Amino acid sequence: MFETFENYIRSKIDLHQDELKHILSLAVIRKIRRRQLLLQEGEICRHKVFICKGLLKTYRRKEDGTEYIMKFAPENSWAIDPESYHNEIPTKYNIEAVEATDIMLWSKASFHELFVSIPAFKSFSEKLMFSSIDANQDRILMNISSTTEEKYQDFIATFPDVFRRVPLHMVASYLGVSRETLSRIRHTQLKHHKHNGIS
Amino acid sequence: MFETFENYIRSKIDLHQDELKHILSLAVIRKIRRRQLLLQEGEICRHKVFICKGLLKTYRRKEDGTEYIMKFAPENSWAIDPESYHNEIPTKYNIEAVEATDIMLWSKASFHELFVSIPAFKSFSEKLMFSSIDANQDRILMNISSTTEEKYQDFIATFPDVFRRVPLHMVASYLGVSRETLSRIRHTQLKHHKHNGIS
Repeated sequence: MFETFENYIRSKIDLHQDELKHILSLAVIRKIRRRQLLLQEGEICRHKVFICKGLLKTYRRKEDGTEYIMKFAPENSWAIDPESYHNEIPTKYNIEAVEATDIMLWSKASFHELFVSIPAFKSFSEKLMFSSIDANQDRILMNISSTTEEKYQDFIATFPDVFRRVPLHMVASYLGVSRETLSRIRHTQLKHHKHNGIS
Repeated sequence: MFETFENYIRSKIDLHQDELKHILSLAVIRKIRRRQLLLQEGEICRHKVFICKGLLKTYRRKEDGTEYIMKFAPENSWAIDPESYHNEIPTKYNIEAVEATDIMLWSKASFHELFVSIPAFKSFSEKLMFSSIDANQDRILMNISSTTEEKYQDFIATFPDVFRRVPLHMVASYLGVSRETLSRIRHTQLKHHKHNGIS
């Protein structure tokens, strides 16, 4: 499990061996069953979570019980509710395993210790947050500027691997369209591809 | 102009008089004409901007030239592209004045100096960023979970003041619906209100 994280972090920043050891020594390892909740609405998000293997989804539940997927987090990505984590307030989100998932987690105190001793790790973590802000802005632009067909195509192009691993109703929940609409679009596109000899 | 900022910042954090003076001494004051661009796609966002009076819009332009409004920033709020500012990369955004606008701006170096000397100002600034991340997440949820009627009502409830000050086509651009659809919704709702004796 450490190996996945080591490869990931080494591809992002230059680290001395003892710095890497320090980061690993503060990590807690957990295995999550499929459908197990890692964070539940109302709790405070107290950890940064790195996914070594598997897939998590972050979702919000509206009053009528409908679930809306805000984010998929596959291996080599992070899961966190930044506002709950930083301001220590109850989260509005749920984080749940879509597949059996192996994770590494760090407490706020551990991350603070690492930020003080490894400035490059702090810079990287900040950069990651700004990328995530930017990804959210891109998603807002996609939401307000594109047709359902375009959103569906963009999802497949951006998350080809996630697309292959989740049922269509989860893609529909992420895009904010009905499963029926998405089935129709998929059917039309498949027909179009067949017609053009693309398989 | 300083008075607006002073009232704003005093309502957010406790500051000594000399700390406030320090913040003000590093601010640059500018007056922006209506339709003037403050930041243009391709430039690097080098300042944090506080709006004392007036209204700015942050928008993206798609390949076909259509403008999509990502944010309105009226008085007592901030305008910035966080990714461009922090990572010093070209912005994808344009920031333009919807009304004649008075602003105060601080360079990155000035903000850094203030963060070092006034920890409360740093905490406040970080808190502001997490609120902004949360607002973006809420907007994504609204986009994927609500009808156009609900989005329109939510906009009026969340930004009543901005709603009164901008033309309907800008609201349509923010919500990602056509002006015609929004006109029809407004017309239906006005008729409904009249029918129920609400004026």
